[in-house]
Amino acid sequence: MVKEPQDLSEFAAAPSEGDGRISTMAAGLVGSEILKIAGDIRELGRAGVEVCNLTVGDFKPAQFPIPELLAQGIRDALAAGQTNYPPSNGVLELREAVRAFYERELGLGYTTDSVLVAGGGRPCIYAAYRALVDAGDTVVYPVPSWNNNHYCHMLGATKLPITCGVDNNFLPTREAVIESLPKARMLCLNSPLNPTGTAFSREALLGICEAIVAENHRRERSGERPLYLLFDHIYWMLTFEGVEHYTPPQLVPEMARWTVFVDGISKAFAATGVRVGWSVGPVDVIQRMSAFLGHVGAWAPRAEQLATVAMLEDPAAVAEFHAGFKAGVLSRLRRLYRGLRELREAGLPVDAIAPMGAIYLTVRVHPFGKTTPEGKTLETNEDVRKYLLDAARVAVVPFQAFGTGDAGQGWFRLSVGAVGEQEIDDALPRVGAALKALT
Amino acid sequence: MVKEPQDLSEFAAAPSEGDGRISTMAAGLVGSEILKIAGDIRELGRAGVEVCNLTVGDFKPAQFPIPELLAQGIRDALAAGQTNYPPSNGVLELREAVRAFYERELGLGYTTDSVLVAGGGRPCIYAAYRALVDAGDTVVYPVPSWNNNHYCHMLGATKLPITCGVDNNFLPTREAVIESLPKARMLCLNSPLNPTGTAFSREALLGICEAIVAENHRRERSGERPLYLLFDHIYWMLTFEGVEHYTPPQLVPEMARWTVFVDGISKAFAATGVRVGWSVGPVDVIQRMSAFLGHVGAWAPRAEQLATVAMLEDPAAVAEFHAGFKAGVLSRLRRLYRGLRELREAGLPVDAIAPMGAIYLTVRVHPFGKTTPEGKTLETNEDVRKYLLDAARVAVVPFQAFGTGDAGQGWFRLSVGAVGEQEIDDALPRVGAALKALT
Repeated sequence: MVKEPQDLSEFAAAPSEGDGRISTMAAGLVGSEILKIAGDIRELGRAGVEVCNLTVGDFKPAQFPIPELLAQGIRDALAAGQTNYPPSNGVLELREAVRAFYERELGLGYTTDSVLVAGGGRPCIYAAYRALVDAGDTVVYPVPSWNNNHYCHMLGATKLPITCGVDNNFLPTREAVIESLPKARMLCLNSPLNPTGTAFSREALLGICEAIVAENHRRERSGERPLYLLFDHIYWMLTFEGVEHYTPPQLVPEMARWTVFVDGISKAFAATGVRVGWSVGPVDVIQRMSAFLGHVGAWAPRAEQLATVAMLEDPAAVAEFHAGFKAGVLSRLRRLYRGLRELREAGLPVDAIAPMGAIYLTVRVHPFGKTTPEGKTLETNEDVRKYLLDAARVAVVPFQAFGTGDAGQGWFRLSVGAVGEQEIDDALPRVGAALKALT
Repeated sequence: MVKEPQDLSEFAAAPSEGDGRISTMAAGLVGSEILKIAGDIRELGRAGVEVCNLTVGDFKPAQFPIPELLAQGIRDALAAGQTNYPPSNGVLELREAVRAFYERELGLGYTTDSVLVAGGGRPCIYAAYRALVDAGDTVVYPVPSWNNNHYCHMLGATKLPITCGVDNNFLPTREAVIESLPKARMLCLNSPLNPTGTAFSREALLGICEAIVAENHRRERSGERPLYLLFDHIYWMLTFEGVEHYTPPQLVPEMARWTVFVDGISKAFAATGVRVGWSVGPVDVIQRMSAFLGHVGAWAPRAEQLATVAMLEDPAAVAEFHAGFKAGVLSRLRRLYRGLRELREAGLPVDAIAPMGAIYLTVRVHPFGKTTPEGKTLETNEDVRKYLLDAARVAVVPFQAFGTGDAGQGWFRLSVGAVGEQEIDDALPRVGAALKALT
């Protein structure tokens, strides 16, 4: 039945000032810095300016399509009527496939009860926070890192960021975290790391694991609640030649008592919009995460879950996909890395860290105190970001978006998931020219 | 690289007793009653006993497949490489399609800024709670209803359930809620109602809306925070002949200032596992819900979002699908209803409310005080549920699973989404025989 539409836009419009309409938690949520940058880029795009967009932690499907086996699996599952509710902890076949995948590829022997499927990696992170952290608990995380500040805010947790510098590839060590552990309910690590593209060495991760085990043995004696490790390794399949990925229980098996993994197909199979992720961890924690996510409803779609089974169970298909996919990512990272190092050798204030994993390059741009042709003196990372966007049409993300504050001065994340090789080759001379134009 | 797998099952096993391993919130989460019943049914299934399963709020795809246009849309979107991140508030095309759909089908004239897309209806409910309710705030909801107790627990909100009886089809009226409104931050309504399959009359909903507007005008004068209405109408497209679906802003346009709709394709298109839902509401609230859900990552998969656009923009396809789908649902509900009324006419202690919407039938079974052939006296709904399952192989859900407590004595939800007509025809005589066998 057609009704005469009633214009509700005025009633539904945002009021000009707050009047307690929003909860305290929601009112205090800080928007994503990266989304603000995306707004700048869209504006240039509308003005017809083409930008080399190195800001998004995502893939352009024209550059990086999902594996055909995954797409075919979704089509097959839909054709088979796999359209009703999945179990709230994931279809059993996928939980079993993840279990077998971890055993085969990572040497980690869990039971299926340790596996929870969700609609991406983020719901797993959020569920781990909610299942483990009470308001007022302290969460320790290194910076630069991704979004832990937001999760702490949503939980009312006390944030304890630990600043990591270039001397250890922006990753923490035992020494960096040891003092904070007695206060902590949870430590959040990510390797390969978003935003840096660097990965833990065996020694660094082992040192941290040993400190966590020692701390938990101390707590067991004193009757305190345990310390957990949230280990987000969503990029673990994307490490490059010579770089090995290590996991806490592989180095110290007892770490399985306190480690919650975050993982999924989003990055490993260029499938960010397909929404399949999983957690692996202690059975009691996984059960509570599952109970929580069941109410939130952040489930992976059923057909996509079944398609993921076919992918994980086919090592040859995974290897074949990764051969092309990783070569494409690495080739882009290398072009950027080499190009920027050449600019450095030419005396320009840039540098970069050799790529180890993920889709990111850590780049230093430090023309601070120099003046642009328009007469603007570059003082902050935000000044540099804007200058590179305007003068070189290259969009990058300052480390401040990853919680570093002033310690990130001069450092930027460059992501290659949404650009082609030619775009990179074209952009590098523009960066060089823009930096040369400074006085 | 293949690693020798390390057995971690002992370390990852659930410890026998709690030791502060879980957060207070997660430790206090109550499991779903319906899932416990599902366990009973699975056990019978393993023993080779076939059960007429009237417990699940879901569809069996063999009985109720999704529209072919939706399946085709997913295939087309995948083929077009729509596999990367959707915007965190949903693809613009879908937000615009929902806006147009609400204007066309419900006469509600919102702007696109009022629309948020998420991975199902549940994430919208949870996000509305988080965006509006602070710990300690009071949330009012009628019982029987679905899961509001769990959402309140997760928020640390104060629950204020209002018991509704058969005299008003288990739905609240102005009189039922008026006293609780001054205390409330949010009122949660659902129509057509899960679990009863009944729908608001125009008068009842109008009365409640007028009370909310009056309460909010009072609060504006006194400077208090407003009262919100969470209006879950996920079943609104599934009403049956003669039953009209009403919405708060349609009856009282100013209600658009405080109404948050929950909706999606899960029930309307038999697509519970496809994971596309949406909220429509005041722009400022929708923005905060979006910021929150962005971090939770409870997004609808991108291809499915685009497929939903094609569906919503094709009134003829919607009408054609609903003609068959709703006829199938209604035919099942009617068979059950008529069959149970016939048992009642035969003097058995059963009754049912005529179906109005959704996929549910409200059924009264009240053989309390009678004794089974095995010598068990039936005293509670749980006794009756077990007896019907064991003696008649019919699985139903007591209203206690929907928060009624003792007030639900004798009342049950019967869902027809996962059964065929023949199954119902076969089950009814078994119910009759089981009730006749009581002494």
